Amino acid sequence: MAATRIGAPMLGVLGGMGPLASAQFMLRLTLLTDAARDQDHIPAVLWSDPRVPDRTAARIAGGEDPLPALLRGIAGLQAAGCGAIAIPCNTAHGWIEGMQAATPLPILHIVDAAEAELRRLGVAPGPIGVMGTAGTLAMRLYQARLEARGWTCLVPEAAEMATLVSPGIAEVKANRITAAYEPLAEAAQRLVVRGARAVVLGCTEIPLGIAAGPALPFPVCDTIDGLARAAIAWAGRSLSQSGSATPAGLA
Amino acid sequence: MAATRIGAPMLGVLGGMGPLASAQFMLRLTLLTDAARDQDHIPAVLWSDPRVPDRTAARIAGGEDPLPALLRGIAGLQAAGCGAIAIPCNTAHGWIEGMQAATPLPILHIVDAAEAELRRLGVAPGPIGVMGTAGTLAMRLYQARLEARGWTCLVPEAAEMATLVSPGIAEVKANRITAAYEPLAEAAQRLVVRGARAVVLGCTEIPLGIAAGPALPFPVCDTIDGLARAAIAWAGRSLSQSGSATPAGLA
Repeated sequence: MAATRIGAPMLGVLGGMGPLASAQFMLRLTLLTDAARDQDHIPAVLWSDPRVPDRTAARIAGGEDPLPALLRGIAGLQAAGCGAIAIPCNTAHGWIEGMQAATPLPILHIVDAAEAELRRLGVAPGPIGVMGTAGTLAMRLYQARLEARGWTCLVPEAAEMATLVSPGIAEVKANRITAAYEPLAEAAQRLVVRGARAVVLGCTEIPLGIAAGPALPFPVCDTIDGLARAAIAWAGRSLSQSGSATPAGLA
Repeated sequence: MAATRIGAPMLGVLGGMGPLASAQFMLRLTLLTDAARDQDHIPAVLWSDPRVPDRTAARIAGGEDPLPALLRGIAGLQAAGCGAIAIPCNTAHGWIEGMQAATPLPILHIVDAAEAELRRLGVAPGPIGVMGTAGTLAMRLYQARLEARGWTCLVPEAAEMATLVSPGIAEVKANRITAAYEPLAEAAQRLVVRGARAVVLGCTEIPLGIAAGPALPFPVCDTIDGLARAAIAWAGRSLSQSGSATPAGLA
């Protein structure tokens, strides 16, 4: 276990998109850190402002620009003394250039974290499925970053987005987690049938829904866990050996 | 459902004591809020600084005073624009006068939240069990506040603290949640045998351990949920009807 680093910078977490996903990020960050007592854990500030305008609506339907709200969060985390920013929302990464231009703090990119998670799961570059919001898919967040590195991204068809993925994400945001499992699991399975070797749960609501039912019989890349592991590496801490599985009944 | 209150003050959460308990507080705050989309949820800032010196060591063993670290968190939450403070750590309430003297923001008292939770569970004033850290029990946090209101607090004996309660709390802080269940459940059961009508889980690590095994056959008062309900009331929101139970597999 790493020594306690008094005075080490805090991790800034720009969350609230949605709030359940960012709470889950804090929980997994804690469980995945090798720690024997409170003082061994990573100091963090979570800015959970769910009032950030809807990212998908902004990207594909002319909705309100979320950047000003995102920049308020970045400024708040910087003022709090944070040393890096993690954003447990894939779609918000569509505004990463604007956020990065406004702060000297490094922003841990969730797509890089997802790629590291795929490799950790033993998935070699090749065809993978990518589930996400309609905004994330329309902005080609994963395709643009991963295809140059040897990955091929298979995404749900428009009809599958409308009937399975988008409704599943909305169920999680409305606290109906168990109702989200079936449509999200069905969409993931279809990507595997089409040749994906693994499926990236590229919206942080999706792992919450997928966890609410039986485990899927193929590798899934949880972008909450991936980002938590990237944050632990940034903080110079070790990964927990014992605490990585989630105990039954927690939450 | 309450209308979205753009511009409403954020809830400040002084956490990290421990970090798993404060992450769980954020999760339960979200699940217990009546919401249909991200923007309906309560804006919040979680200041999760696990480096705060150990509260029990300070209270009973001459350890470092935690108040300066607590005040840094309060100042950070106030600077972030929060309108009230919730502290998901019972023992930290031993320094509430010092914290309240340093800020005009109201601090939602966890013992008042626990009392409201007891009443919600249908437990009338009378004998109750109170589990907590050795620090919380030594400072008579619950006894001093509740006995004037008709409650009688039964607490674990010194030997039970040393062999059951304190080790159980330490297991949770070290991410060994399932190992915490047995000693904590045993301590709770002994209080009921001695006449307690319900048991207050008066340390926010304890509900995490108790959730990791079979439900106890008597009312238990979860101080994480109680404080979350108090925060939802402060924010003027309604409680969720559907999302209050925790979905299987979450976290």
